[in-house]
Amino acid sequence: MALVVQKFGGTSVGDADRIRAVADHIARTRRHGDQVVVVVSAMGKTTDELLRLADDVSAVQPPRELDMLLTSGERVSMALMCMALADQQVDAVSFTGSQAGIITDTAHTRAKIQEVRGDRLRQALADGRVPVVAGFQGVSTERDVTTLGRGGSDTTAVALAAALGADACEIYTDVTGVFSADPRVVPQARRLSRLSFEEMLDIAASGGRVLALRSVEFARNHHVPLHVRSSFTWEPGTWVVEEEPTMENAVVTAVTHDTSEAKITVTGVPDRPGLAARLFRALAERSVNVDMIVQNVSQHGTTDISFTVPKVDVASSVEVARNLAAEIGAGEVVADTEVAKVSLVGAGMRSHPGVSATMFQTLADEGINIDMISTSTIRVTCVVRADAVERAVQALHRAFELDTF
Amino acid sequence: MALVVQKFGGTSVGDADRIRAVADHIARTRRHGDQVVVVVSAMGKTTDELLRLADDVSAVQPPRELDMLLTSGERVSMALMCMALADQQVDAVSFTGSQAGIITDTAHTRAKIQEVRGDRLRQALADGRVPVVAGFQGVSTERDVTTLGRGGSDTTAVALAAALGADACEIYTDVTGVFSADPRVVPQARRLSRLSFEEMLDIAASGGRVLALRSVEFARNHHVPLHVRSSFTWEPGTWVVEEEPTMENAVVTAVTHDTSEAKITVTGVPDRPGLAARLFRALAERSVNVDMIVQNVSQHGTTDISFTVPKVDVASSVEVARNLAAEIGAGEVVADTEVAKVSLVGAGMRSHPGVSATMFQTLADEGINIDMISTSTIRVTCVVRADAVERAVQALHRAFELDTF
Repeated sequence: MALVVQKFGGTSVGDADRIRAVADHIARTRRHGDQVVVVVSAMGKTTDELLRLADDVSAVQPPRELDMLLTSGERVSMALMCMALADQQVDAVSFTGSQAGIITDTAHTRAKIQEVRGDRLRQALADGRVPVVAGFQGVSTERDVTTLGRGGSDTTAVALAAALGADACEIYTDVTGVFSADPRVVPQARRLSRLSFEEMLDIAASGGRVLALRSVEFARNHHVPLHVRSSFTWEPGTWVVEEEPTMENAVVTAVTHDTSEAKITVTGVPDRPGLAARLFRALAERSVNVDMIVQNVSQHGTTDISFTVPKVDVASSVEVARNLAAEIGAGEVVADTEVAKVSLVGAGMRSHPGVSATMFQTLADEGINIDMISTSTIRVTCVVRADAVERAVQALHRAFELDTF
Repeated sequence: MALVVQKFGGTSVGDADRIRAVADHIARTRRHGDQVVVVVSAMGKTTDELLRLADDVSAVQPPRELDMLLTSGERVSMALMCMALADQQVDAVSFTGSQAGIITDTAHTRAKIQEVRGDRLRQALADGRVPVVAGFQGVSTERDVTTLGRGGSDTTAVALAAALGADACEIYTDVTGVFSADPRVVPQARRLSRLSFEEMLDIAASGGRVLALRSVEFARNHHVPLHVRSSFTWEPGTWVVEEEPTMENAVVTAVTHDTSEAKITVTGVPDRPGLAARLFRALAERSVNVDMIVQNVSQHGTTDISFTVPKVDVASSVEVARNLAAEIGAGEVVADTEVAKVSLVGAGMRSHPGVSATMFQTLADEGINIDMISTSTIRVTCVVRADAVERAVQALHRAFELDTF
């Protein structure tokens, strides 16, 4: 008998029919002999609707109250799920984040889990019941209701799987798994049946939207096998697991892309120590999430610094950079929103040094210019023109023979 | 500096504009120098919508999960209220029933308050903040979320006022107070500026819908002055207070009516001890809320028993009565849904024994037949034909000179 955590996202529980379909699946898992802990998100567009309501009421939205507001969503979906399970003769019992013992810090709207007590979940399991837990929420050390921020329900599921020693954490979503590229861009993209945590981390960081980076980090740190799969087709999806040293890794596993960032360049920065540090500290203080950073070799005592930031942060980033440029006697600050990132991810890259060269050549053959480059041990990322990114993904997918098995 | 509990019902917080209007009123109360504890219901039709959703999902609705579902409603309204107050520079903080320390028994969907701890509310008040508390909900001794049933938010407000030693509990609603009769039936009905708890209890029990019986009982038992008033006009409404022995009471304070009940008659009941007890015990076991009971004087060794029940319980009540009638050899069981109750309420009746006679005479003068009569020390109730009840109310309002001051 295995213990499985099954997490269902907003589209998976989007209406009454979906909730009944999910309850049916949970009941089947139970009949198969496994123990189940269920984690649910708020139904469909609930969170967006609550945020719109908040905007209608007030321009001032204290984070504590925003958390109180948003956590009403999972309460609805988990109570309805328990009713649907009762209809299937499955004895289920719902738990808020607080009741499930998910203790967080006090950083409202982006709280971090500090501890998972889970006593009531263990008791429910021992009583033969199915605990249905609210995703995305916890209770702070100050006894206030908190939310875990983006990807929070995935994090709840992984944290519970770790705390309860579950055999697997199944993340049910509206796609059938993780693909070798975005299937909308590359119709020949294939579903990956198995990935290492490291590959999944780089895929998530470079544009793959299936799993939030944070939940993958949590799973890796706590050795929780993840299974990303569809709640619409119920077919087996993608396993994300520890890398097995005996396995030979594919050189390139996936081609990812991301059009959500813009490039900002500061030209003519005097080549003195500490100036880059001042720039990025100033950006961090404005909570700007800087992704890639490239600094050219110094020419005539000055250098250019380019970096990418989320498009929503362009205005404030430019302001910060212009202030600093004026202070230190640098040149222009230029923002370019017509860029995109394309990345190759694969654990086998570690032992195959030629991947970057093949990537650059492939792009050159397509006549695609590279703006910026950054690499990690198992990833290469190029910034290209936004209007060329789909062509780049298709060419790379072909060049690395990802179309075939 | 007074401490006031202000409770706002569903229509008072029905949309973003209403929430802002209420926040403005709370801010004014604060500027006036008073301390405020706010209690809110779920917005408008939220509860009905959640119940419809539950019906769509499952025919089986475990009460614990129904409570979890419904308590999401107040979470939304209290968080929005705190945001609207923040917008008015009022430092407010929301508390669930559990966080406010409202401890109940484990009877889901109709829990009774056992204790109000209120430590966090006292702390918030000491910190100069306005606590905004979810009405209608608590946490059980088993640490589960419970709801207090019909009129629950009023009960929350009164319980908090009692626990915190508030100077008054203001119940804001969509009418301007308690009237001498339903103004839709009697356009000359006037708003009562002051009532005793006993009068309010009899008004609530005999058809006045402004306050739930239970919250009035709680207020009387804990000596909490109530002020029923409108959140649309903000004018002073009706005070419900301890009876003052020095005051001369009006003989009749209000004429109430109620069309929500049906009359059931069991004929030819053998005149043996214990048969009536068996009937009403059987009804109680089916959770039927029997209101009036009249048993005629025995004729020829048998008697007729008539009683009124909510119209929704007619079918089950008739079934119970027919089973018993067959068992004990009684006659027919007849249900009559075309009846209505009309009542006179007034603390002065205690010292004015002629009220009933005047009531019966007034109805007789109008050609209105009386089906059943029941009296308490400060109330007389007659059951009449449903189609005559408005005429009865108007005639009585006139006869007891309630139109004039």
